[in-house]
Amino acid sequence: MSDNGELVVGVIGGLGPEATLDFFGKVLVHSKAKKDQDHIHLIIENNPKTPNRNDAIAGKGISPGPALAGMAAALDRAGADFIVMACNTAHAFENAIRAATPKPFISLIDEVVDEVRGSYPDTKRVGLLAAQGCLDAGIYHTAFAKQGVEVLNPGEKSQARFMELLYRIKSGERGADIRRAMQELGEELIAAGAEILIAGCTEVPLVLTSGENTKPLVDSTDVLAQRCVKYARRIKPLPV
Amino acid sequence: MSDNGELVVGVIGGLGPEATLDFFGKVLVHSKAKKDQDHIHLIIENNPKTPNRNDAIAGKGISPGPALAGMAAALDRAGADFIVMACNTAHAFENAIRAATPKPFISLIDEVVDEVRGSYPDTKRVGLLAAQGCLDAGIYHTAFAKQGVEVLNPGEKSQARFMELLYRIKSGERGADIRRAMQELGEELIAAGAEILIAGCTEVPLVLTSGENTKPLVDSTDVLAQRCVKYARRIKPLPV
Repeated sequence: MSDNGELVVGVIGGLGPEATLDFFGKVLVHSKAKKDQDHIHLIIENNPKTPNRNDAIAGKGISPGPALAGMAAALDRAGADFIVMACNTAHAFENAIRAATPKPFISLIDEVVDEVRGSYPDTKRVGLLAAQGCLDAGIYHTAFAKQGVEVLNPGEKSQARFMELLYRIKSGERGADIRRAMQELGEELIAAGAEILIAGCTEVPLVLTSGENTKPLVDSTDVLAQRCVKYARRIKPLPV
Repeated sequence: MSDNGELVVGVIGGLGPEATLDFFGKVLVHSKAKKDQDHIHLIIENNPKTPNRNDAIAGKGISPGPALAGMAAALDRAGADFIVMACNTAHAFENAIRAATPKPFISLIDEVVDEVRGSYPDTKRVGLLAAQGCLDAGIYHTAFAKQGVEVLNPGEKSQARFMELLYRIKSGERGADIRRAMQELGEELIAAGAEILIAGCTEVPLVLTSGENTKPLVDSTDVLAQRCVKYARRIKPLPV
């Protein structure tokens, strides 16, 4: 805890690192600080060596659970008061994180669902731009179902296209063709009935921002960044 | 240590946070990764609550030593194999950091001096754009003197202008007027005889990059980022 009573945020990151950088930048923007000391204290565990989450969920690779638990434990030892993770898909392994530390783990998924409920209360159908593992594990489907909100996925061919774009983004590409392709995947979901889009993968906002589609986009990275600032400053109590 | 034998980098940051973000981004660029797992493992302790370094060196504020030592110890506990700090001025307190952990601390100052010696071996005079505390503590002057290189500072009025710009950058300003003013301070040092400029404050590269002045600029943040990638991958042995 900081001397002024603010909480120290522990960030599980590196999934991938560019998304963690984006998250860090968004925390700084939302902090609206006028000097160094106005900013919140973050500890970022950026372990990009964590095994591929999509492969593990598909049963084709080793589990990232131990690496994620290792980051949570390291953040705990380093002094984090609560822990978040700047990756949606890895929330399929949140039990491993919760088991690794007694510190509260704030679910990005729950925060996004809460944001949709608060800012778009009449929404019945959201369109989900997320990695295959996130869809396969049903992470958002389960959370939104509790709110009576239906989750629309891209069709099989479009989802395969999404995964291709995802790995190109992770390799450092940010070209106009990737941006346009991601925007088109969003538009397909809108044509299928989505009232809002969920950037349910932290690589998505690296190439697509709200205002580029004909319906609003909820950026999971930005939601988590905003919430972290509020939780750290105790403007909002930590969810139990 | 990562499973492939790469070293885990511990980063003392938040001095300020925008400079730490810049450092993180530069590490990612220099990593030239094609997938998440190609990136290096970083743990970033971003504690912006650390007391003002310039005030402490001027005898007008409490020492940041304990906060810096606290970050070093936290990084050690979290599993860092070696430690760096994305701030020049705070190197005035490097003894407090070294005393807090047995892990190697890699001096940004030494890396910058080594970079100048390697890339600009005939340099006799460098122009230093750095915070007042960094000048008062003589950090670069001592290190460059060992190489027979003279360090030129801005005049008193220009240095006061530098500090004004520094705190405006820390407050989030990045306007064209700040960029131009920083470039002009660099040009004054060149007019006084500087053969190269040292961005010896990690806020400087947020508004001034190499190529904007009539002589080259050595960006301390970029030097440290490049060196960290090499040390982590063991392309270069850690200095003892």
